[in-house]
Amino acid sequence: MNLEQGKQQQGRFDGGPSRIEAFRKNVNAGVLKFVRNVRKLGRDDPRRVVHSLKVGLALTLVSLLQYCQPLYDSFGVSAMWAVITVVLVFEFSVGATLGKGVMRGLATLLAAALAVGAHHVANQSGRIAEPILLGFFVFLQAVVFTFARFYPTIKARYDYGSVIFILTFSFVSVSGYREDEIVKLAYQRLSTILIGGSACIIISILVSPVWAGEELHNLIASNIDKLAGFLQGFGHVYFEIDEDLVSNRNKSFLHGYKTVLNSKNSEDSLANFAGWEPGHGRFLFRHPWEQYLKIGARTRRCAYRIESLNCHLNPHAKPEIPSKIRETCTEMSLECGRALKELALSIRSMVKPLAAYVHIEKSKSAAENLNSLLQSSGLWGDNTDLLQFVPLATVVSLLIDVVNCTEEIAESVYELASMVNFEAVEPTVSPEKPETGQSKPLKSSDDVNSPSVIIVIDEPSLENGTSSATTTDSCSKTSN
Amino acid sequence: MNLEQGKQQQGRFDGGPSRIEAFRKNVNAGVLKFVRNVRKLGRDDPRRVVHSLKVGLALTLVSLLQYCQPLYDSFGVSAMWAVITVVLVFEFSVGATLGKGVMRGLATLLAAALAVGAHHVANQSGRIAEPILLGFFVFLQAVVFTFARFYPTIKARYDYGSVIFILTFSFVSVSGYREDEIVKLAYQRLSTILIGGSACIIISILVSPVWAGEELHNLIASNIDKLAGFLQGFGHVYFEIDEDLVSNRNKSFLHGYKTVLNSKNSEDSLANFAGWEPGHGRFLFRHPWEQYLKIGARTRRCAYRIESLNCHLNPHAKPEIPSKIRETCTEMSLECGRALKELALSIRSMVKPLAAYVHIEKSKSAAENLNSLLQSSGLWGDNTDLLQFVPLATVVSLLIDVVNCTEEIAESVYELASMVNFEAVEPTVSPEKPETGQSKPLKSSDDVNSPSVIIVIDEPSLENGTSSATTTDSCSKTSN
Repeated sequence: MNLEQGKQQQGRFDGGPSRIEAFRKNVNAGVLKFVRNVRKLGRDDPRRVVHSLKVGLALTLVSLLQYCQPLYDSFGVSAMWAVITVVLVFEFSVGATLGKGVMRGLATLLAAALAVGAHHVANQSGRIAEPILLGFFVFLQAVVFTFARFYPTIKARYDYGSVIFILTFSFVSVSGYREDEIVKLAYQRLSTILIGGSACIIISILVSPVWAGEELHNLIASNIDKLAGFLQGFGHVYFEIDEDLVSNRNKSFLHGYKTVLNSKNSEDSLANFAGWEPGHGRFLFRHPWEQYLKIGARTRRCAYRIESLNCHLNPHAKPEIPSKIRETCTEMSLECGRALKELALSIRSMVKPLAAYVHIEKSKSAAENLNSLLQSSGLWGDNTDLLQFVPLATVVSLLIDVVNCTEEIAESVYELASMVNFEAVEPTVSPEKPETGQSKPLKSSDDVNSPSVIIVIDEPSLENGTSSATTTDSCSKTSN
Repeated sequence: MNLEQGKQQQGRFDGGPSRIEAFRKNVNAGVLKFVRNVRKLGRDDPRRVVHSLKVGLALTLVSLLQYCQPLYDSFGVSAMWAVITVVLVFEFSVGATLGKGVMRGLATLLAAALAVGAHHVANQSGRIAEPILLGFFVFLQAVVFTFARFYPTIKARYDYGSVIFILTFSFVSVSGYREDEIVKLAYQRLSTILIGGSACIIISILVSPVWAGEELHNLIASNIDKLAGFLQGFGHVYFEIDEDLVSNRNKSFLHGYKTVLNSKNSEDSLANFAGWEPGHGRFLFRHPWEQYLKIGARTRRCAYRIESLNCHLNPHAKPEIPSKIRETCTEMSLECGRALKELALSIRSMVKPLAAYVHIEKSKSAAENLNSLLQSSGLWGDNTDLLQFVPLATVVSLLIDVVNCTEEIAESVYELASMVNFEAVEPTVSPEKPETGQSKPLKSSDDVNSPSVIIVIDEPSLENGTSSATTTDSCSKTSN
């Protein structure tokens, strides 16, 4: 054992105070970080705090059933079910709360009725057969409804209802074997569930409601906005002459689109909840929420192209590009971004997306321009080293794909606009048209930092972490 | 009113029988379709039927608590909680059941202890203050724990625990106000929950268990397999000379990868459940499930590239390609597919992915070959119409991206292999190397229809529906 090792081991035993100090510091830092996270959680979306208060309020209100003697006398121990209902039914959005509340009510009603029937049948069959028959009924309904939960439609919409059905049927039919007042029990349970459910629904609608439909509406618009942010930035970063400007700027807009890639599940569940909601604000009952899913799917497809495009953002892989091609590509990307931004705006403000078509036409004519530029053989010089041309061709081709995707998104937004009669407002295209001439500097900072680009990268999961860490890696290899 | 209209209206009133007939036919067809779907559901995964039977068994077993007089005497009405626990805790996989069961137990224990404490404090504060104080406690814990459910870590892992905490605390502290035997109540509830939870866990482990870890393991392998299936098919379909062969063949392998795009959520939840599971079969406790998520993320990134590649599959957009380039590209795609298939196999059978590297090296050398082919100017003829070259360049570039992604996947699989000491087995490369010569036909049918390619397109959702319908559309525009 040499001197160093000896010192280390000594430290392990009698270096106590300093290690306790370090531990205390660690704990302090952890607590501080936790507090900061919690505060951020509330500040990012204050509706979370409001929701928590709403749940507390509902729970305290239904507890009154237990505290007030006259109410307690009429409901008895069943009053507990109101508490359970509130805890299990109260969700963040009105749609989810309504859906769960209604399902809970209906499933309980149906299951209780069937259980009373089952109890009646079992009752007539003699003392010995009764528990066997009841057990068989419980077994049968559990098997049938558990299997039903695998059926796609039921799984997507009525999963909670199935669980409640199994629960209530087992509960009522089994406890019915003991208590002879089974009908009274079922009635009490139903009425307390009704009270709990109504408390949830009323509070969730009256106290600063969170509508799933509006959430979906905004999510779709902000997803389109994220793609717009990328495309408006991409043109500059990839084709920009002024490297310093590019490297200094905040590049978060180039990663905003990543959350779009995995947004399918949240869109699906929001659309599901939105179907339960009554008309509210600008949305009537039976608003075409399915159409939002269609727009969402097309937006996601566009995001996949952008993910491939993003791989070619590595500055080292940048080929030397003739300036005319560079400008046309930049215009294509910018116009596409503007079109998407107009589409997002059109969804948000519910006006017809007329301006978007202007930008799409511009990006398409830029694409045609590009085609003729590529056809004119003189541009690329005399050497026909096609290898040099591959990265540029890829970017061009992916950009053209993106233009097509944008057109598809525009089509589906237009379908939505005609379904729900969006207002027709004159196109809001900015008066000064960006020229394709060489001399005019592109209004880079305006486009990238314009206020309507909202870039939120929420919950940086492993997915995002690894992808941002390794994308550069994979891209640098591409340049070889 | 003309004659036709009159006839129609008449039909509406007295044409009853034929319409009833039509209605009956419709209903019959609907029922038949439903039955067929249900049968398919069970046949696709017989474990679903077994799971339903397991739930029925568990529920019937805990009902015994209620039927048997001696058991009923010791638990009373609390026996109901065993039934509720089984319904809410029993999940498809062992991990999910264990996680929910343990969380339910711990959260109930903690909440009950705190509620008893709260009840004690309230009890000491006088008759009037008691309900107010209890109401305040209920409100406070509901607010705190509802807000906690928004915290990402808690939301991902302890959401159910939080709900149960709120439920139990409210339940015990509120009912404690009435019943003086609050400690007995808490004890009874805990023991019946323990009985219900144990029944779930024991049955779920002993009767043909479904391990979430194994599911994750297989999902990751089959996702990689799907990409392999696409790449092995892509080479043939895009570069194939024999068009008839291509158009006649079942092209489902070209869509299998689409389910990979949206697999993040299922992977995340499976990994979460797997963390709860004890060692089983080939998986020890604390198997590195996180590493599977890393492999999954990289697989998904490869799938995004493939999605872009798939857009260029339209036969009308196919450019005329010099045969040498065509062969090299086909080889690149095939070797990449073989590498991925080896990786999937290596995960499935838990042996080191040595053979995969051979194929990756081959695909990389094919890429280098391609580079030098593109550099030799004579190949493309004398016309330097770059526009014609764009589609090919894109496919080449995306294929190179795919090769890089494959290498990344291989790296992470290798990391996994060294983490859990996969067996080292000699590479299982097929003895006859596919030649790059022109004369030898590529073994197309072998590659595409080989038994280890499993292509399952489950639940064709709106997403898949719209994408497959419109991809061709978007691609045909690209060719202009």
